[in-house]
Amino acid sequence: MKHLLYTIVLLISSNYSFAQNDNSKKFVLVIHGGAGTILKSEMTPEREKAYTHGLNDALQAGYNILSKGGTALDAVEATIKVLEDNPLFNAGKGAVFTNEGKNELDASIMDGKTLKAGAVAGVTTVKNPITVARAVMDKSSHVMMAGKGAEQFAAQQGCTIVDPSYFFTEERWKSLLKEKANDSLKAIHNDTAKAKTFLKQKENSDYKYGTVGCVALDMYGNLAAGTSTGGMTNKKFGRIGDSPIIGAGTYADNSTCAISCTGYGEYFIRLVMAKSVSDRMELAHETMKQATNEMIMHKLGELGGDGGLIAVDKNGNIAMPFNTAGMYRGYMTSDVKKEIKIYKD
Amino acid sequence: MKHLLYTIVLLISSNYSFAQNDNSKKFVLVIHGGAGTILKSEMTPEREKAYTHGLNDALQAGYNILSKGGTALDAVEATIKVLEDNPLFNAGKGAVFTNEGKNELDASIMDGKTLKAGAVAGVTTVKNPITVARAVMDKSSHVMMAGKGAEQFAAQQGCTIVDPSYFFTEERWKSLLKEKANDSLKAIHNDTAKAKTFLKQKENSDYKYGTVGCVALDMYGNLAAGTSTGGMTNKKFGRIGDSPIIGAGTYADNSTCAISCTGYGEYFIRLVMAKSVSDRMELAHETMKQATNEMIMHKLGELGGDGGLIAVDKNGNIAMPFNTAGMYRGYMTSDVKKEIKIYKD
Repeated sequence: MKHLLYTIVLLISSNYSFAQNDNSKKFVLVIHGGAGTILKSEMTPEREKAYTHGLNDALQAGYNILSKGGTALDAVEATIKVLEDNPLFNAGKGAVFTNEGKNELDASIMDGKTLKAGAVAGVTTVKNPITVARAVMDKSSHVMMAGKGAEQFAAQQGCTIVDPSYFFTEERWKSLLKEKANDSLKAIHNDTAKAKTFLKQKENSDYKYGTVGCVALDMYGNLAAGTSTGGMTNKKFGRIGDSPIIGAGTYADNSTCAISCTGYGEYFIRLVMAKSVSDRMELAHETMKQATNEMIMHKLGELGGDGGLIAVDKNGNIAMPFNTAGMYRGYMTSDVKKEIKIYKD
Repeated sequence: MKHLLYTIVLLISSNYSFAQNDNSKKFVLVIHGGAGTILKSEMTPEREKAYTHGLNDALQAGYNILSKGGTALDAVEATIKVLEDNPLFNAGKGAVFTNEGKNELDASIMDGKTLKAGAVAGVTTVKNPITVARAVMDKSSHVMMAGKGAEQFAAQQGCTIVDPSYFFTEERWKSLLKEKANDSLKAIHNDTAKAKTFLKQKENSDYKYGTVGCVALDMYGNLAAGTSTGGMTNKKFGRIGDSPIIGAGTYADNSTCAISCTGYGEYFIRLVMAKSVSDRMELAHETMKQATNEMIMHKLGELGGDGGLIAVDKNGNIAMPFNTAGMYRGYMTSDVKKEIKIYKD
């Protein structure tokens, strides 16, 4: 199994096209575990193995559903739950800490067949935010719920409620302390150009944000997308990023594609990233590869942002572009092709 | 003045095109005060007059800024503040009540020149949410803040903080009691088809949601958009609608147009309404009239939603389509054209 795991890098390009045959049983699952300053030089073999295992477990969960005729929505939810439960990723258990030392979680999910969507923002007591987002979509007349209200809804719907201490991890706590120390440095050296340069470098070399996401095409031709995150380390003022924003961090439309984003959320919101990709395909007739490359490799950088996305279109084509050093990512398809990657090709 | 007010309906169509001259001093201000079941048969002359006055006051505030060479952003903020301070409109003072008897306010603003944006959701203590949204855009590295955190930020930025009781209005309180009575009816008669039909009719005939919004083109060719709301009467679970969502309720891009939406927010989120209009112009080369008509008169209804939007493009063209019985709306331009309307043409 382990041997298999590290040798299944079957394809060189991160943009892989299906042969255009008429296999109606075709299905595809794509995942990400965040994009950022992920450098091989800073990674230990053990850590690399742990991430690869984590991504593989998630892929397998979704694949098991799709291969048995399950829906894209069910696969997306189940896959993201596995990533949320894994402390390596910044979502659910393993979420980063806010400035106040809390874990505030955001998630969203969308059904490409109906354009129905659900999202939660700033929840602190639900074990799996993606499941609450799904419940918002399926069991309420709303799309987005936030804070205590969303938690009440989650409890009412029978979602697993946990004590906020469930989300504590030593590593994320240390990241918060480090960020706070940087804040103090900033306050002291606010006016010196030297300090600014130093802090800018520190900021860039830190992996401050992360997200998990999944997109799927099921054997009925339906698309779905979902995203979940703990946001940014040391975030203040109830900041909400792009992950729970339909159109920004998540979008799915059977007529175009399903998308989940990761990166510096503010830029993804301003660009309305996921819907822009979908619109480029629908309105400018770009391929998904063209549309995602244009948005991630050009528009995002032009605005000063960084990050990446995963996407699958109605024909099963996959795109996983990013403009950062790395992005935890992988896919698995009905013809048993599987790839798990961390760094640039 | 009053006479002027009621006779300035200068233009028959709600889609008005500027003559394409090269007047670089051209500026345009467009506002809305919500769309919904606004029927002339249910309106008193006094109430109609009050709404018209309210819209006129708001237009005048923005016009005064634009005519003196002020920016679109400043005009949008000032105009929306006037609407927020007017208890007739569902934003700021006059906001509807949540199920818990609170007033939870959402707002967003966007700068078409830089694609910078700011938004707040679920705030209960800031007098003018649009001003906090502006501060989020101008004074933070974030785009969206929610709840207590956003209120802390507002206080830190010197925004006017009020006791939540400031937002109480008798009329909105009565609307909440009425909605709660409907809820009880629903609980009792949940399973009878007759009761369902009755309640559906009640729902449709009630004006359950409202919003205020403003879009502007200044004499420098810059566009801006803003939206503010109290959400839906009797809303539960920290529900967030489209108003604070960049791309859904608000969007501005100098290369296309500035948009502010109003209506059943969930549908506007799922369609990513404002960005879709902008993308139709940019990618499918539709005129603003074509793009807004397609999204409001076709796509919105097809999904089962209702509402409207206001838009101004870089050439100063105006669109104000809606698929409801009415929409409080108006505009004022550099060539002193002014129109205020409530019902369908």
